[in-house]
Amino acid sequence: MIMYKDIDATGIRDTMERSSEAFIIYGESTLTERAAFMKRIAQGLQAAADTIVPVAMRESHLPEARLRNELGRTIFQLNSYADAADAGRWLEVSIDTADPVRTPPKADIRKTMSPLGPVVVFGSSNFPFAYSTAGGDTASAFAAGCTVVVKAHPAHSETSTMVAAVIDEAVKACGLPEGTFQHVHGASFEVGRALVSDKNTKAVGFTGSFSGGKALFDWAAQREEPIPVFAEMGSTNPVFLLPEKLAADAAGLAKQLAGSLTLGVGQFCTKPGLIIAIAGSSLDTFVDTLKMEINKVVPAEMLHEGIVRAYGEKRNKALARSGVTLISESEQPAQGLQGRPTVAIVKASDFLKDTVLHQEVFGPWSLIVACADAEEMTLVAASLEGQLTASLMATEGDVREHPLLVSTAKSKCGRFIYNGVPTGVEVCQAMHHGGPYPSTTDSRYSSVGADAIKRFARPVSYQNWPDALLPEELRNANPLGIWRTVNNELTKASL
Amino acid sequence: MIMYKDIDATGIRDTMERSSEAFIIYGESTLTERAAFMKRIAQGLQAAADTIVPVAMRESHLPEARLRNELGRTIFQLNSYADAADAGRWLEVSIDTADPVRTPPKADIRKTMSPLGPVVVFGSSNFPFAYSTAGGDTASAFAAGCTVVVKAHPAHSETSTMVAAVIDEAVKACGLPEGTFQHVHGASFEVGRALVSDKNTKAVGFTGSFSGGKALFDWAAQREEPIPVFAEMGSTNPVFLLPEKLAADAAGLAKQLAGSLTLGVGQFCTKPGLIIAIAGSSLDTFVDTLKMEINKVVPAEMLHEGIVRAYGEKRNKALARSGVTLISESEQPAQGLQGRPTVAIVKASDFLKDTVLHQEVFGPWSLIVACADAEEMTLVAASLEGQLTASLMATEGDVREHPLLVSTAKSKCGRFIYNGVPTGVEVCQAMHHGGPYPSTTDSRYSSVGADAIKRFARPVSYQNWPDALLPEELRNANPLGIWRTVNNELTKASL
Repeated sequence: MIMYKDIDATGIRDTMERSSEAFIIYGESTLTERAAFMKRIAQGLQAAADTIVPVAMRESHLPEARLRNELGRTIFQLNSYADAADAGRWLEVSIDTADPVRTPPKADIRKTMSPLGPVVVFGSSNFPFAYSTAGGDTASAFAAGCTVVVKAHPAHSETSTMVAAVIDEAVKACGLPEGTFQHVHGASFEVGRALVSDKNTKAVGFTGSFSGGKALFDWAAQREEPIPVFAEMGSTNPVFLLPEKLAADAAGLAKQLAGSLTLGVGQFCTKPGLIIAIAGSSLDTFVDTLKMEINKVVPAEMLHEGIVRAYGEKRNKALARSGVTLISESEQPAQGLQGRPTVAIVKASDFLKDTVLHQEVFGPWSLIVACADAEEMTLVAASLEGQLTASLMATEGDVREHPLLVSTAKSKCGRFIYNGVPTGVEVCQAMHHGGPYPSTTDSRYSSVGADAIKRFARPVSYQNWPDALLPEELRNANPLGIWRTVNNELTKASL
Repeated sequence: MIMYKDIDATGIRDTMERSSEAFIIYGESTLTERAAFMKRIAQGLQAAADTIVPVAMRESHLPEARLRNELGRTIFQLNSYADAADAGRWLEVSIDTADPVRTPPKADIRKTMSPLGPVVVFGSSNFPFAYSTAGGDTASAFAAGCTVVVKAHPAHSETSTMVAAVIDEAVKACGLPEGTFQHVHGASFEVGRALVSDKNTKAVGFTGSFSGGKALFDWAAQREEPIPVFAEMGSTNPVFLLPEKLAADAAGLAKQLAGSLTLGVGQFCTKPGLIIAIAGSSLDTFVDTLKMEINKVVPAEMLHEGIVRAYGEKRNKALARSGVTLISESEQPAQGLQGRPTVAIVKASDFLKDTVLHQEVFGPWSLIVACADAEEMTLVAASLEGQLTASLMATEGDVREHPLLVSTAKSKCGRFIYNGVPTGVEVCQAMHHGGPYPSTTDSRYSSVGADAIKRFARPVSYQNWPDALLPEELRNANPLGIWRTVNNELTKASL
């Protein structure tokens, strides 16, 4: 592995050039070869867990149990995306066979997926394993056949380096070109810009702030050859408390939401940051319970100083907006790196006028928006920006009675939750973790689940190729035994 | 239908507002309702053919047979995308069922597709039916559940208006909101900009020039909420003549390519504009035959004055570049709106230095690039921009002998043709009509074939919803009878 401390422009150019050269080889690897490589990384991480976790604890201030859990998730992702890659469903193979007697003759057309090329990954601060060096973006890029350059997150650069060493070992063990994976350091803005702007970069994965993701998006769009940026940039994850449900279970909902909004010191992209309900006695009960619940929470350390400072600033800024009233803070004040759990309330009429309150406050914060009626709840829903998730706390009757609120909430989100909290993102095929802008830069792709692989590939049709020269997945005999759409019918049969 | 002649800023705002309002209804339509609507448009076009075709002939200067054929293709697209929409495969439904005993409990997650919202379509000049008002973009947007606003192409605005009337009749007959489809006129740059920049616009379809598509892309990326632009912007469609094949059939290849490059007066986005081969006696034979073939072609009328002028200018500009030699023109000179078939040759060493020669010349033109050896052919392939298609004229031995040339050519294109010409784009599931930038603005999507529907939808996951409240395609009973991935297995079974 070639390592750079604070990489410069020449280093970046050389890195991306190497990535492009390695792609000529790795891009032609078989699905099975990629799966073996990814499983090797998973094994390496498992073996290195006891060495890496303490370093991650020191760098991220996250507790051991959480980090071991997250490392387990990272290993699961590598293994499950490897299996998905190998199973070949993501290739979405279609075959339309020739019809030589038609006028004009119909050609044989066969479509599969081809990797985009070198991918640059910017890891997140809040998931030092699962959305960092060997995390979801890296795993899905490898599965698609792309080479990867990771820029280490400065907040956990040692952890990142140790994970990179595990990947590097797997590259060697699998006999892949050295440039298949590269790891660079660099805290400056210019490093990100140069990586995204390099002509050899063909796609970008990012998890982090809106300002960071938007900058990458703009640089990528301004290139001579624009490239896709998959930036997951956060969300306020609105939770709508519908009237019948709220009346039936105000205290229960408050407890559930108090747990969700303070989980992991509120440092999840799916933390519920907005709670929207109709004012009245049920909401009063909800507020009273939430107040007590938040009072009891013990402040915990956040990821790093920058995050704590930003949390404090954004929290205080929101509290200072017109019409916003503090409901509750943790009784125990925050010290050092700790973030203080806080909830506040605002009238919908004030919320609708003030877009500052629509923005994410990353940390253990949530804002209740008290509406005059269901119509105003719908206006609030319509006023929101794109979200990773939206949740309805509702009875079936509530849903049937408020179709416009429900369809408006759905139109804003990538995952639509019924009677549940948004925190907790299952890694599975049916998961869509990606919402309308600005929660992500491309609502059509998920950063979680095996469909994340599709971000880094594009379709290619082969016309009239001899069977022996086709990629395996397109051959008549279907040697990979995968599902294929042949003349519009899904089948595993050979031709 | 609300009609605007030279729409202004207020008209555009109102149009997009109406589109957004109609989307609230049309976006919730069932697959079967959408299919019925599209088939009604297809029937209407069939019934109106004898009235519309003469107008299209007058406006486009295309011959009747071609236009009747193209109208047939347009009807086929509407019907086949309707069937594909109805069959629901494009929804790519995935279901992962709950596991309440797991720690933590696993939620029920079900993923389907949701339409993006109002789509603005800019039709092409070269396909007044198939890629215009009721063409591929409109059909796939309707299939996805999006409302559509078409800006008529000024070169065939009467044809466009007549087709719009057919769509409008179908909107009424199917009881859809008036704003489901709208048709506007306006020749200015500012109209396009305002349509793309309007906050209610959620995606854009475009077929035309690089400068037009790139402007739309830039405007869309600079919006407060960036939106996807699917611009198909043309291509030089390189054809590589590999040595063994060229030696075996130089004259046959020349005849085949002469036909392809002059078909429809070279006015196809898939016209072969570059022919790349190794210099030598076989290429001399090829050139001699091509010269004779092009001599014989009778010039025909191009679409409109602007296209003829641009063809003449770009052709002359290319001919004036250093090292370019004219091989052959049609014996009969061009008059009026006619475009004169022309082929020229240049050494690869000159071609590699001059990016002007890499650009598309829209019309009956092709440039032969004579390489010193196979290595230089690979350099030429590597130097090319993204293409809709690349073709290899090759024996199996040629392909095996030149793996780097083959993989380089593949990496540049969306459709990879073996021993065939690129003109002729089959409308079928396995077709990918979309290549790396700058041939399109998004290589991951096709503008031809039922997968074009996917451009206008995004995934949404439903978490823990009661069966009765789920969209049909996600319900336990699988009432639509579609293929679904349930717990990672593809099945049509109910749950």
